[in-house]
Amino acid sequence: MTFRGFEIKRYQDGVVERALDSIAAEEPLAIRVLHWRKDSQQAENLAVTMRTPGADRELAVGLLLTEGVIQGSADIVDMRALGVEPSNEILVELDRSVDFDEWRQRRNGFVSSSCGVCGKASVEQIELVIPQATAAEWRVNAGFIEALPAILDSHQSTFHQTGGVHAAALVSLDGTLVSLFEDIGRHNALDKVIGSATLAGLLPLDRHVVFMSSRGSFELVQKAAMAGVRMLASVGGPSSLAVETARRIGITLVCFVRDGRFNVYSGDWRLNL
Amino acid sequence: MTFRGFEIKRYQDGVVERALDSIAAEEPLAIRVLHWRKDSQQAENLAVTMRTPGADRELAVGLLLTEGVIQGSADIVDMRALGVEPSNEILVELDRSVDFDEWRQRRNGFVSSSCGVCGKASVEQIELVIPQATAAEWRVNAGFIEALPAILDSHQSTFHQTGGVHAAALVSLDGTLVSLFEDIGRHNALDKVIGSATLAGLLPLDRHVVFMSSRGSFELVQKAAMAGVRMLASVGGPSSLAVETARRIGITLVCFVRDGRFNVYSGDWRLNL
Repeated sequence: MTFRGFEIKRYQDGVVERALDSIAAEEPLAIRVLHWRKDSQQAENLAVTMRTPGADRELAVGLLLTEGVIQGSADIVDMRALGVEPSNEILVELDRSVDFDEWRQRRNGFVSSSCGVCGKASVEQIELVIPQATAAEWRVNAGFIEALPAILDSHQSTFHQTGGVHAAALVSLDGTLVSLFEDIGRHNALDKVIGSATLAGLLPLDRHVVFMSSRGSFELVQKAAMAGVRMLASVGGPSSLAVETARRIGITLVCFVRDGRFNVYSGDWRLNL
Repeated sequence: MTFRGFEIKRYQDGVVERALDSIAAEEPLAIRVLHWRKDSQQAENLAVTMRTPGADRELAVGLLLTEGVIQGSADIVDMRALGVEPSNEILVELDRSVDFDEWRQRRNGFVSSSCGVCGKASVEQIELVIPQATAAEWRVNAGFIEALPAILDSHQSTFHQTGGVHAAALVSLDGTLVSLFEDIGRHNALDKVIGSATLAGLLPLDRHVVFMSSRGSFELVQKAAMAGVRMLASVGGPSSLAVETARRIGITLVCFVRDGRFNVYSGDWRLNL
């Protein structure tokens, strides 16, 4: 995690003191792609996303995957930070087989990871890209879900525990933590998890569970689906569109996972209850 | 507030029960504009934003203002919902004096309200649009800030109190609540407050304080600045970019406002401490 220190004034019960406060960093990351058009390479600005610096490669790969630009790590030839370090620009060189112009035409605009829908020119386009989840042949017990907060607690940074940032965790079916990323944006945290798994050749993530410290919102369901995830669990509550989408595409959505309780909003056939 | 009811399975301490759960609605709103190009009107898709239905007119106006398309309500000739009710499309007819093409060229892409930066093609563009806040000739006491959570509590819906949605409140300098809007997206809640104030002819909001139930993130500072707000307070913590931006443009940023305490991250000259 990246932090910034700021001198502030702290007020409590009538007393004012000067203090040094450490807060989560938030900076724009410009993601550019180098893609092939006929016989030459084109550089193009793809997205600017506000993120907590760190794991920028994972974030870029995750965003490209969850937005449907790439299908896996084989579609990426090279990645490099542009400008001076610490860099807020990353250039992703795509394989010649990736038809970026076709993707762009289909997408009709710029991408943003913030909501998963920015740049899509119509409501209809939003759901077009989400693949249907096939039924997985596994089930987990209630104890598996109950244990998720403890897995997160034991690995996350102190800062997260204060509620300053969001965490996304990838957990295998035996309850092992595979990866954990934190970011000021929950969508970025999940993109980092997915990008990391993409680079590790783990896709599709149909035998893993994603656990979020945040709410279970629509864009998280969408991103999880793009990576083949079948079960998404979250500490906070869902939105209506998250539930509707999870039900339609067959993803198990479990929310309010805390203090020995949880609610199953979709796909309860993957739980032994 | 708009809710949706879902049949769910609720698990607690080993017991499973079927229940009806009420959760905050989240649906895409497509914002289209009708603008003048030479002697004819052009319809254009401006943005698709995920929002909690309700106050869509306020949301559209607030987004247009905070993205710099319009300067005030005089720039809007008419607004109407498209399609069947409840509608997820709104058409905003702009006054002939609004040079939308010029704005679009400057902006270089689609707009999204989600992060305040989507569609901007480069990092540099992000901060270009934020106006400098001039020094206001007023100060508030610590008691004014301390009282903000109680003002929010006394007016917000029960649902918000469960943490399901974000609230944005506009408070005058004598501590009176002017307006309060809730949304699953904090940026939407603030856009609704600003849109409502725009329609009421209250801009610039240089004698009001905005109080958010959420974190104090960059895009909230940016949106507040676009409406002339000088002081932004929030229940949650800030991001580094929010602090840096607030300091640079002269906005007072007060975060962690709860339980009789708060931190002043920027512009403490507007507080009697």
